[in-house]
Amino acid sequence: MFGIVKKKPVEKLTEALGKEKVKEDTVNRRLYSYDATPIPIQRAMPSAVVFPESHEDVVKLVKVCYEEGIPIFPRGAGSGLTGGAVPTLEKGVVVSFERMNKFEVNVDNATAEVQPGVITAQFQDYVERLGLFYPPDPSSFKYSTLGGNIAENAGGPRCLKYGVTREYVLGLTAVIKEGHTIKTGNPVIKDVAGYDITKLLVGSEGTLGLITSATLKLIPKPKARATALALFNNLEDVGKAVTRILTSGLFPSALEFMDEDAIRAVEDYKPVGLPRVEALLLIEVDGTHQSVLEDIKQVEELLKPMGVEVITAKSKEQEEKLWSARKSLGPALGNLRSGKINEDIVIPRIYLSEAIREFREVARKYDLLMVIFGHIGDGNLHVNLLYDKSKTEEEERAERAVDEVFEVALKYNGSITGEHGVGLTKKKFLKSQFGEVGYELLKGIKLLFDPKNLFNPGKVVEV
Amino acid sequence: MFGIVKKKPVEKLTEALGKEKVKEDTVNRRLYSYDATPIPIQRAMPSAVVFPESHEDVVKLVKVCYEEGIPIFPRGAGSGLTGGAVPTLEKGVVVSFERMNKFEVNVDNATAEVQPGVITAQFQDYVERLGLFYPPDPSSFKYSTLGGNIAENAGGPRCLKYGVTREYVLGLTAVIKEGHTIKTGNPVIKDVAGYDITKLLVGSEGTLGLITSATLKLIPKPKARATALALFNNLEDVGKAVTRILTSGLFPSALEFMDEDAIRAVEDYKPVGLPRVEALLLIEVDGTHQSVLEDIKQVEELLKPMGVEVITAKSKEQEEKLWSARKSLGPALGNLRSGKINEDIVIPRIYLSEAIREFREVARKYDLLMVIFGHIGDGNLHVNLLYDKSKTEEEERAERAVDEVFEVALKYNGSITGEHGVGLTKKKFLKSQFGEVGYELLKGIKLLFDPKNLFNPGKVVEV
Repeated sequence: MFGIVKKKPVEKLTEALGKEKVKEDTVNRRLYSYDATPIPIQRAMPSAVVFPESHEDVVKLVKVCYEEGIPIFPRGAGSGLTGGAVPTLEKGVVVSFERMNKFEVNVDNATAEVQPGVITAQFQDYVERLGLFYPPDPSSFKYSTLGGNIAENAGGPRCLKYGVTREYVLGLTAVIKEGHTIKTGNPVIKDVAGYDITKLLVGSEGTLGLITSATLKLIPKPKARATALALFNNLEDVGKAVTRILTSGLFPSALEFMDEDAIRAVEDYKPVGLPRVEALLLIEVDGTHQSVLEDIKQVEELLKPMGVEVITAKSKEQEEKLWSARKSLGPALGNLRSGKINEDIVIPRIYLSEAIREFREVARKYDLLMVIFGHIGDGNLHVNLLYDKSKTEEEERAERAVDEVFEVALKYNGSITGEHGVGLTKKKFLKSQFGEVGYELLKGIKLLFDPKNLFNPGKVVEV
Repeated sequence: MFGIVKKKPVEKLTEALGKEKVKEDTVNRRLYSYDATPIPIQRAMPSAVVFPESHEDVVKLVKVCYEEGIPIFPRGAGSGLTGGAVPTLEKGVVVSFERMNKFEVNVDNATAEVQPGVITAQFQDYVERLGLFYPPDPSSFKYSTLGGNIAENAGGPRCLKYGVTREYVLGLTAVIKEGHTIKTGNPVIKDVAGYDITKLLVGSEGTLGLITSATLKLIPKPKARATALALFNNLEDVGKAVTRILTSGLFPSALEFMDEDAIRAVEDYKPVGLPRVEALLLIEVDGTHQSVLEDIKQVEELLKPMGVEVITAKSKEQEEKLWSARKSLGPALGNLRSGKINEDIVIPRIYLSEAIREFREVARKYDLLMVIFGHIGDGNLHVNLLYDKSKTEEEERAERAVDEVFEVALKYNGSITGEHGVGLTKKKFLKSQFGEVGYELLKGIKLLFDPKNLFNPGKVVEV
């Protein structure tokens, strides 16, 4: 008797979806085994990369994977920083949503139906031309996808005033265990029927199922913006200034913070003429052409008595120059050292100066260069540990230092992540943030949606 | 041998909490067996009413209830309209949070820690005196509690611009199965660690556990408000006007809609001089003193070419008069008929005129008086079916008509509830909104938090 040749699991995927949508060549498998995570992480070459083109494709692929026990690693643009999109098992497949990149805006309803592969910036530009606004602004917005943003619950500077991605997702279509389709929410702002499955899927990092479509909320586009820069000789005054602004009736659209090392890094890299002060705040307001001028004037009046100098942008060019200081921070840090770990911890802003002092102690202890900047209005600080990539020992020190940075954040009643998600790199800290009982609930939720642990296994929670 | 006298389950509660916190007298048991639901619902006299005074009390009571199998019916102010706070089993206890009514505001962090029994309006007044703002404004805000608002994910007119209660809850302390405490979230705006248990508990109507404390987000209080009234001779134009406003850069803090019967009801009850038009919009903007005047002027300019008359409030008194039309709707309807079923369905506003036409057909079919008003910016319409309470047959007709109102809402891709929650009265419609697979997930989540089905059993989902 002849033995029956058993089909490889991946062949069944090809059968179900067609050769054009399932790539098994080494180049693709290698290309899709990375994301933007800056530190060494567990990683494997997947057995294939799948490119679904429709909801139906996703249903088919999840069905096959569930039957064959194939782990699924969903991927947007791969711009994530915590390993969320990285395959970790060789028998797994990467599912790239780049071909599902269509969207439709309903102006009269101020909503949009979007596929996961739509590039965030392209969508934002489109709706702004219609007088509408989609605020979430992760710094990767020029290449990140809406699906990735939803999976990570992405945020950025504007979230202080406008909230994070979660607040703009009204409904989702997703494929969960066994290829079942769920439709959650509706193209309406208010809906209190049943538990909010929509908001549970947002930020779940692909571990509960695959999102194939989202209904997004759009809001009116502000008519005008204005920017000012506040210079602080004393770190302690920053928190006070923020309180003064936020209790005066002003609601800035961004309150960005840079510490003295961040200022130095920018000036050394591409000088914009920032004075050497202990800290600065970049303050942006939006509204009508008239109100933004009034608001900036009020900022000046509020901060002057504190001895804080306020520089107001008098033209579009000056405004861009002020923002360029903030925006050139990334390359400026790259100029300082070859390696960078950028952590996005969150601390209640009342503990700002204490926490920063403790972060600096960590840097001293591990003899590393540290630069701190971030979205101070919402307590989200980017603590950057810089190191020389060619020195393994220095890299290891940086990784150990990061652990202590997280511990400081948790000590001050904060969070280990405000924007980047848990993924692989922050997994070990999740239990201390949630506690035993809370962590058990996370595991229970995971298994409800994915009893075989095939959706992005090993990320976020361990089951 | 003598039989051992077994203690009644409630006696164990008294032992654990003390007599002052557990009331078994008939008056209390009867008083706490109602809420504001306007239609006949399943209801039972509870075996006791428990008045916890601290988190520890709640832990003790849940422990006893879990050991003894006592159903728990949590209660805020009892102002809910869907039976959420009503006890349905005689062996159950009502847990009233009225003694847990403390709160603490942290101005520098723009957050507050609140107990569930705090009255919404008292909290709002307090934070506004500090220059801060807590926007959620259910119409019951003068007597409703923050705990009840969180349980129901309450909303009101301002939610168009400011979002619902869920968006202001940053963290929760709750007691779940067996008396376990979970702490979710943090006093920070951004936190993407793990699945969002906080947002899952908000709107869960007491079916997943008991909330003992909440961390709320506060935002800057707007400096000024202004109001205008737009009069429509044609219902079809209302949707167009709303789009025109929301794509012009304006972001009204309220967009309230009244149909012709609502206008008539108000004028017959307490005339404010509204003309007899097919529909009106009450438009409120907020911002700076200067910007609100500009905004109202822009509203006029936008709507005049549509043939829509815009009346602007020139003084505080005129403004109050305009709002009084909207606010006197409740008593005005009471003046028309003794009975009222006020449903809070949601429809995408693009279907506004079609849906209203279908609602009117339902009213004609069942020969009932119907009045429609609501928050048009977010599609949340209050469809009121009026009937004579003394006529059982008419009341029954009204109840049957409501079912068809829900069907219309679902047909137009809307929701059965935008504000009031599911509770008992909308339970049978939840499955059609969620589908089989979605409903199974709701059941699974319920059992994760409450495997014995003791937290508000029989509400929202059937397990």
